[in-house]
Amino acid sequence: MKAISKTNEAVYERACNVLTGGVSRNTIFRKPHPYYVATAKGSYITDIEGVERIDFANNMASLIHGHSHPAITEAVTDQLKKGTAFTLGTEAEVKFAEHMIARSGTFERMRFVNSGTEAVMTMLKTSRVYTKKPKIAKAEGAYHGTYDYAEVSQTSNPENWGSIDKPNSNRVVDGTPQGVLDDVIIYPFNDIERTLNILNEYADEIACVLIDPVPHRVGLFPATEEFIRAIYNWTRANDALMVFDEVVTYRVNYGGKQDSFSVKPDLTAMGKMIGGGFPIGALAGRADIMEVLDPRGRILRHPHSGTFSANPVSTTAGRVAMELFDQEAVLKLNALTNTAIHQIEEAIKIADVPISIVGAGSMFRLHLQKNKPKSYREAYQTKEKKGLINELLDYMFLKENIIMINTGACMFATSLTQKEVDRLSEGLLNGFKLLKPKLHRLVGVY
Amino acid sequence: MKAISKTNEAVYERACNVLTGGVSRNTIFRKPHPYYVATAKGSYITDIEGVERIDFANNMASLIHGHSHPAITEAVTDQLKKGTAFTLGTEAEVKFAEHMIARSGTFERMRFVNSGTEAVMTMLKTSRVYTKKPKIAKAEGAYHGTYDYAEVSQTSNPENWGSIDKPNSNRVVDGTPQGVLDDVIIYPFNDIERTLNILNEYADEIACVLIDPVPHRVGLFPATEEFIRAIYNWTRANDALMVFDEVVTYRVNYGGKQDSFSVKPDLTAMGKMIGGGFPIGALAGRADIMEVLDPRGRILRHPHSGTFSANPVSTTAGRVAMELFDQEAVLKLNALTNTAIHQIEEAIKIADVPISIVGAGSMFRLHLQKNKPKSYREAYQTKEKKGLINELLDYMFLKENIIMINTGACMFATSLTQKEVDRLSEGLLNGFKLLKPKLHRLVGVY
Repeated sequence: MKAISKTNEAVYERACNVLTGGVSRNTIFRKPHPYYVATAKGSYITDIEGVERIDFANNMASLIHGHSHPAITEAVTDQLKKGTAFTLGTEAEVKFAEHMIARSGTFERMRFVNSGTEAVMTMLKTSRVYTKKPKIAKAEGAYHGTYDYAEVSQTSNPENWGSIDKPNSNRVVDGTPQGVLDDVIIYPFNDIERTLNILNEYADEIACVLIDPVPHRVGLFPATEEFIRAIYNWTRANDALMVFDEVVTYRVNYGGKQDSFSVKPDLTAMGKMIGGGFPIGALAGRADIMEVLDPRGRILRHPHSGTFSANPVSTTAGRVAMELFDQEAVLKLNALTNTAIHQIEEAIKIADVPISIVGAGSMFRLHLQKNKPKSYREAYQTKEKKGLINELLDYMFLKENIIMINTGACMFATSLTQKEVDRLSEGLLNGFKLLKPKLHRLVGVY
Repeated sequence: MKAISKTNEAVYERACNVLTGGVSRNTIFRKPHPYYVATAKGSYITDIEGVERIDFANNMASLIHGHSHPAITEAVTDQLKKGTAFTLGTEAEVKFAEHMIARSGTFERMRFVNSGTEAVMTMLKTSRVYTKKPKIAKAEGAYHGTYDYAEVSQTSNPENWGSIDKPNSNRVVDGTPQGVLDDVIIYPFNDIERTLNILNEYADEIACVLIDPVPHRVGLFPATEEFIRAIYNWTRANDALMVFDEVVTYRVNYGGKQDSFSVKPDLTAMGKMIGGGFPIGALAGRADIMEVLDPRGRILRHPHSGTFSANPVSTTAGRVAMELFDQEAVLKLNALTNTAIHQIEEAIKIADVPISIVGAGSMFRLHLQKNKPKSYREAYQTKEKKGLINELLDYMFLKENIIMINTGACMFATSLTQKEVDRLSEGLLNGFKLLKPKLHRLVGVY
């Protein structure tokens, strides 16, 4: 059976008989059916029907060099012949840790896991052990993986989010125990006064304040220097930790988004791009905190292992990818992204549509509103807006052959060039024009 | 720099400067330093100092065909050229799911994740959504990964385990919130009367009874048919689910350990060997329960994704590995393991030591006691026994060049032959003789 004889629809039909909803992750779901990859190289993906598309999603920001980068493919191919997983160590994990610690001012010790979800979970558990306190504070709307304590209020909406002075702790998954909600405190991102008031109320119980410094689902605008400094000072005064989720944002600077701030997190969770295209997560930070994980301690305060953690395939691919993403590569990629943002802003002007664009480093997100949103609640997509974004993304995918992220975001890779950026901004200009009548009707409503 | 010039000690010294405790997972830690793999093929691992050892640990049961199996290496090498991760689907995930559902009578729908930890977490969350109840019941001493709710009482000891009629819910990681302990009910494995009494006390609140059908840390003896049937009947009567953790035990029969029982679990979590040596986890089970994960529903009851979930490398390697592990291969491997068990029992007789051996399928574990343990508390290793097991394992590793799992267990791979089994039983005989005087002194104490 040749791939050419298959259609995306036919594969999805088979998928529906074996996978719930026909997909193994909701990310790839689209109506009437998802698309299936035959092959991908750099920034181009060809599906099983032979259609080639430009990839601005890069597996939700996880491929910093695009697809099948030759140096990564070569290093992994070499490792495959030597084995992929052992009950012993490999030098690959040591070399990768050495690289990451050398590039990041705040990393003294680290540990690898298998995903961003596991990295955040390990970080929150480590914070509780170190501080001997049970509660976590996190931003309304922020996505931090699927650990119950990390996902509270990620999908809060106008009907359940409550007062902005004290946002509600809401379940994301039905059946989340009440105990989880009781131990997660929700703060409004970048809102210093309200956040400090909320934190003060639980000062004795908060183990850590969890911050994604450019939270995608909140709106993809960066934390302000003032906000980070306020949280830092509060945590110093209240025996709590300030911990960053840089699973997505580590790409923003050479040493992560944290490089932008005058004060630094105590612990950092990573994932996505640091695996070079393979499953990974990592926790890094102050040695005195990470020590709670040390198996040489008199008692095991936080026994931590994981069958595939630090496997030599993910750590080899990750090291090669990160070595290639050097200071110069970071600046070049951010500059290209900046060019794209300017071109898209120009397209917004030409089309004369109430759309704004926000982001940081090599990422941006479109919002269907004239003024850039400054909070989760301002950026919140109503059902109508979500419908229009989906229309735009469908148009881009099906007519312009351009893949974006389902929120209306792009996460760049070093395999992109000015040529693809031009295709993106031209495609978006066409899309904006198509959307314009509906958008103006919608904005009229609000 | 050539690998030959490096020592295990020197690499560990570097590791201590970057990784907490010098390791990224406690599993590989050993005093005075871990060992680092240069290359591995089949059942042989060569470390960076050039020492070759026979591998009976297989990365904690995750390599069912040993290291660098040519068919897996070839399939993955081919996939690498086509890309490793996308925001779109691949046929690889569909083909693998089709294989797993065809081989397992109880699987109607499934989803892939990145590790056994994630698989168990997703299973427990799915159980809560479906039943609308908050509590989990799990066996004292059983290991199910690092999700807080799954790890409660995994390390219970005589000082904190409480009455066997109502085992305590104990923290494994310091700082685990009280809410977690309140929502996890501990039962004594294979003890029908006590377990049912405990479950009855919380009948209205239990979402699922979590069972590893051959729990390694409990002692690696199988659940009895009667116990499984009792739990099954109780869950039917009380609107709860019976869910299996087969991350380790799926290897026992062609369709998992569950093939052995007359009643079947509603959901099954998998991991380890089904990834063919690459990071994976999976959740499978009844379609009507799995439906809570369906993104096509009117409301998202359990939104579920994951950046690397169902990536084409893990799903390709997994499918190839599982296709090779066909009915015949399973029986052949179990027969070889059985031969090993008989030879080791013979060695125990010859050495005349108070040691017993238990297991199932392609796994077994040694216990430093004459009679086979039947419960976690009977199998519990005191500090003295743990010390002797470590002495035995060190002897095997350093003098016999044989790698076992740190509890005194072996998990076989199809790459093993009678030759390696003879080496194992001869090595153990030598080890038993060395241990004998200390063992007799210890048994005298108890």
